[in-house]
Amino acid sequence: MKLAIVGLGKMGANMAERLRRAGHEVVGYDPYSDASDVDSLAAMVEALGDGPRVVWCMVPSGDITESTITEVGGLLAEGDVVVDGGNSNFHDSLRRAEALAGRGVGWVDAGTSGGVWGLENGYALMVGGTDDDVAKVWPALEALSPGEGRGLAHVGPPGAGHFTKMVHNGVEYGMMQAYAEGFAILEASDLDIDIAAGFRSWQHGSVVRSWLLDLLVRALQDDPGLGDIAPVAADSGEGRWTVEEAIRTGVAAPVISAALFARFVSQDERDVAMRAVAALRNQFGGHAVTHVDDEQG
Amino acid sequence: MKLAIVGLGKMGANMAERLRRAGHEVVGYDPYSDASDVDSLAAMVEALGDGPRVVWCMVPSGDITESTITEVGGLLAEGDVVVDGGNSNFHDSLRRAEALAGRGVGWVDAGTSGGVWGLENGYALMVGGTDDDVAKVWPALEALSPGEGRGLAHVGPPGAGHFTKMVHNGVEYGMMQAYAEGFAILEASDLDIDIAAGFRSWQHGSVVRSWLLDLLVRALQDDPGLGDIAPVAADSGEGRWTVEEAIRTGVAAPVISAALFARFVSQDERDVAMRAVAALRNQFGGHAVTHVDDEQG
Amino acid sequence: MKLAIVGLGKMGANMAERLRRAGHEVVGYDPYSDASDVDSLAAMVEALGDGPRVVWCMVPSGDITESTITEVGGLLAEGDVVVDGGNSNFHDSLRRAEALAGRGVGWVDAGTSGGVWGLENGYALMVGGTDDDVAKVWPALEALSPGEGRGLAHVGPPGAGHFTKMVHNGVEYGMMQAYAEGFAILEASDLDIDIAAGFRSWQHGSVVRSWLLDLLVRALQDDPGLGDIAPVAADSGEGRWTVEEAIRTGVAAPVISAALFARFVSQDERDVAMRAVAALRNQFGGHAVTHVDDEQG
Amino acid sequence: MKLAIVGLGKMGANMAERLRRAGHEVVGYDPYSDASDVDSLAAMVEALGDGPRVVWCMVPSGDITESTITEVGGLLAEGDVVVDGGNSNFHDSLRRAEALAGRGVGWVDAGTSGGVWGLENGYALMVGGTDDDVAKVWPALEALSPGEGRGLAHVGPPGAGHFTKMVHNGVEYGMMQAYAEGFAILEASDLDIDIAAGFRSWQHGSVVRSWLLDLLVRALQDDPGLGDIAPVAADSGEGRWTVEEAIRTGVAAPVISAALFARFVSQDERDVAMRAVAALRNQFGGHAVTHVDDEQG
Repeated sequence: MKLAIVGLGKMGANMAERLRRAGHEVVGYDPYSDASDVDSLAAMVEALGDGPRVVWCMVPSGDITESTITEVGGLLAEGDVVVDGGNSNFHDSLRRAEALAGRGVGWVDAGTSGGVWGLENGYALMVGGTDDDVAKVWPALEALSPGEGRGLAHVGPPGAGHFTKMVHNGVEYGMMQAYAEGFAILEASDLDIDIAAGFRSWQHGSVVRSWLLDLLVRALQDDPGLGDIAPVAADSGEGRWTVEEAIRTGVAAPVISAALFARFVSQDERDVAMRAVAALRNQFGGHAVTHVDDEQG
Repeated sequence: MKLAIVGLGKMGANMAERLRRAGHEVVGYDPYSDASDVDSLAAMVEALGDGPRVVWCMVPSGDITESTITEVGGLLAEGDVVVDGGNSNFHDSLRRAEALAGRGVGWVDAGTSGGVWGLENGYALMVGGTDDDVAKVWPALEALSPGEGRGLAHVGPPGAGHFTKMVHNGVEYGMMQAYAEGFAILEASDLDIDIAAGFRSWQHGSVVRSWLLDLLVRALQDDPGLGDIAPVAADSGEGRWTVEEAIRTGVAAPVISAALFARFVSQDERDVAMRAVAALRNQFGGHAVTHVDDEQG
Repeated sequence: MKLAIVGLGKMGANMAERLRRAGHEVVGYDPYSDASDVDSLAAMVEALGDGPRVVWCMVPSGDITESTITEVGGLLAEGDVVVDGGNSNFHDSLRRAEALAGRGVGWVDAGTSGGVWGLENGYALMVGGTDDDVAKVWPALEALSPGEGRGLAHVGPPGAGHFTKMVHNGVEYGMMQAYAEGFAILEASDLDIDIAAGFRSWQHGSVVRSWLLDLLVRALQDDPGLGDIAPVAADSGEGRWTVEEAIRTGVAAPVISAALFARFVSQDERDVAMRAVAALRNQFGGHAVTHVDDEQG
Repeated sequence: MKLAIVGLGKMGANMAERLRRAGHEVVGYDPYSDASDVDSLAAMVEALGDGPRVVWCMVPSGDITESTITEVGGLLAEGDVVVDGGNSNFHDSLRRAEALAGRGVGWVDAGTSGGVWGLENGYALMVGGTDDDVAKVWPALEALSPGEGRGLAHVGPPGAGHFTKMVHNGVEYGMMQAYAEGFAILEASDLDIDIAAGFRSWQHGSVVRSWLLDLLVRALQDDPGLGDIAPVAADSGEGRWTVEEAIRTGVAAPVISAALFARFVSQDERDVAMRAVAALRNQFGGHAVTHVDDEQG
């Protein structure tokens, strides 16, 4: 099939490449990329020819997604479809789907996972939209996925794809932190444990084998103590949204929230909370010193 | 090679079978099993012939492991090796290795993961012991593992194998709870999400793909709402030990402990803590009622 | 001073009483209460006479607060002041303050704590609003507070009062859960500990003495094992908002969120997450049984 | 009454002073203090005269407590009593009580809270021991407590005092972290909130009023942003023991453990776990950079 991709960053460029390898025709647009095939959104839509036209947006979540989808929507006509493959909040997707529906333009939210490995391995795709709209995009979705029906599912109506991707990332936070804590506990042992070998032994046959484990083994191969890696882990929105949604619906999420908070603390150079704890210890344990080394709480 | 296995329960029997399929000669002993080849530990050791004799203990952790290893140790001679493949606490393994070493008997602690799937897939094995002792058991370890060096590592001195297995299980707790929270958040959504399809889409290409995810997909296939499963998750020692070791060495383990506590609560029919919270709400919000539905805290 | 109170429930009626005891003139309105002094909001505003008129809203947060403030605002004139003493979300307070400001009507958000004890002890009041608006309400605030400047502070502009009250309640969740966990750990001890005596010993001289502790001692006096209290703790919005705000601003809140999640679990009869954990244990540990009592993870 | 105190550090010296003010006769011994009344444990016991002799140990928990109690025990005779007022682990207290009982020497474990404020306010005392032994020390306990039966309880047999003090400190960890998180959330707000005023408003009438809150208000008075306080909070054993005991008995302690872990992280300069999380993000998000600022998990 023929489709346009807006956004040729690391993810978008790889996806365009994977689609082309599968024989699809891709019109790429990115005002900041040499790989752009056209020089405007209007030219891009023009290049798609007759409908139904499919435009896949692969831009960072937030303002740029908002303005891109608004502008693309204005250029499309009844029966065309906008796909949002980015990490948008599902609330925004619900709103955007409804706004486009008012003009007869279709909507698909395609939560996409796979990182830089997706070009070769294929991407996992969790897809929200009506049956009709999803059908129009299906050949591209199949090409992007690992293939043979694997890693691809139409999970529900508009918004369901991004909701599922949000939860996917929340689960990812929990899993990463679980391995990280395991690493830290092994590292603190005074037994002389070959940690990298231990993690390697888990890769086959064990209950905790996973792709993230494979990546951790790779990282430890390069740098056994991870000393070259700064102990700062950014968070990118979806972990926060997952916990917010859990709270909104009254679902306990102790592991996902703990993983999120560990990242917050790693980013927090001011450490306000622990100043308050230290101040309290100081208050009840003695006045002369900034740090109280001993207390009789 | 030739070796004995003590304990022919679900795990031990499967391991004996896997070893035999690989051409090893196994003398199995279990006083409670029809599959027992001999009728006493003494007969079992006798059946092993000349040394170095290898006895693999595959019995539940705790008293039965203690008495088995003590008795087996007494029957073995210098140069023989006891292997503990169970989920023993590494502190016990250190102590047992030292006690056996006093008599010249070797020690290997082989943390074993793989559950009922190990017979066909092979087991992940994280192995502690001296080079000499581990070498004596290596052919059996290779046969039990998935093969070709995968899923098998000599991770350190005596105790290191069980330490690594302990952490493995702690990580497992965290991962399981991460998926479980994701399931609960998806289940609480009022979007009409096909949860089983969502999890299936994660199996290929996604960052969270894993064997545990594959198992969850299987479980959802059988019972999409998991309504036939009682919401009670036992814990079997190693999760507790992991958190205790984290605390002992001053390592934060918020995710693993949260997963452990979620299990405790699922097992706790008396819910003592929440009675106290409810009592406090009652106290400050009003006296007439057992349940306070509204408060002005 | 003279002021109106809308809402004569447990909190509103007590506050009206405390204000009258202090010599203030209160016009109370509540369509569902026999104690109502007037039979409409219009009559209530009429009864306040010349401005600046002060109307204190003490109704449950949510729709009823929204409609009440909208209607009251419409009846008031430039220079009058609406006070919201309920547990409203500070985002709503910011919006309402702005809407009223458009018509020249002032705004005070007075976060109020003290429960049923406030009538005798006075209420803690954390107050947001402009200096002018707060000054118009100050005599009433002083009368409601414990007195002599205690338990009363003008903490910032509109919204700041409800923000501070939100955090207050989040802290309250954490403190209550801390005591509750302590109670549960004492209760699980096989030492023969007199728990009620233990808590009583903390009431004077100890680092953890507090009013909540005093309440817990009272509860234990009535019912030493808290067996008459159902282990279900409702949550009333502000705990959720506190964690949401922490997440929005990237602040780690592990204790407050853990306390919130413990309440969620206590309310959750379906226990969806733990079904998933149990299903996973079942999958890797054996197929024949619903509950797996032993596993070799 | 007459009694000896071993250990004249901050706590011991203040306690000796409070006892003397109440008319008791105190023989103080501390080899490192000018205030020592005698120059050896033997001289101290000698100075107590006829029995029943009471020796109150107020030394840091650990080796020094062990050796002190062993030596003191050896100097005492049937009917005498050793009191341990330090923060000892209750397991050690059970063992020591039993060892002393073998020689007819009595035992009291007196968990003591109050910090540097105890001299003036009195100390909270949670006391374990037999009725007979506790009776021999009661006059001193009353003098040390805030008085009139307040802040003093005989909570159970030997060990019960230190168990209760352990839980007391665990609760303290949770409460301190609750206030600290509240402070951090207030501090992150972009509303212009007078945080110190907010905390002051909670001191009277509110549900969260407490002595720790009073201390936090003091700390904020001296240093409103707590900028002079290093964000490092030590932990002193009892928090760890509380969580270990919770785990041993299968009690969920999410809040106390979260508070403990926050302290661990504040002390941890190597941040091993977060290196692992950062390494994983790097692995799946791109290879070229140490820090991945954007990911498509």
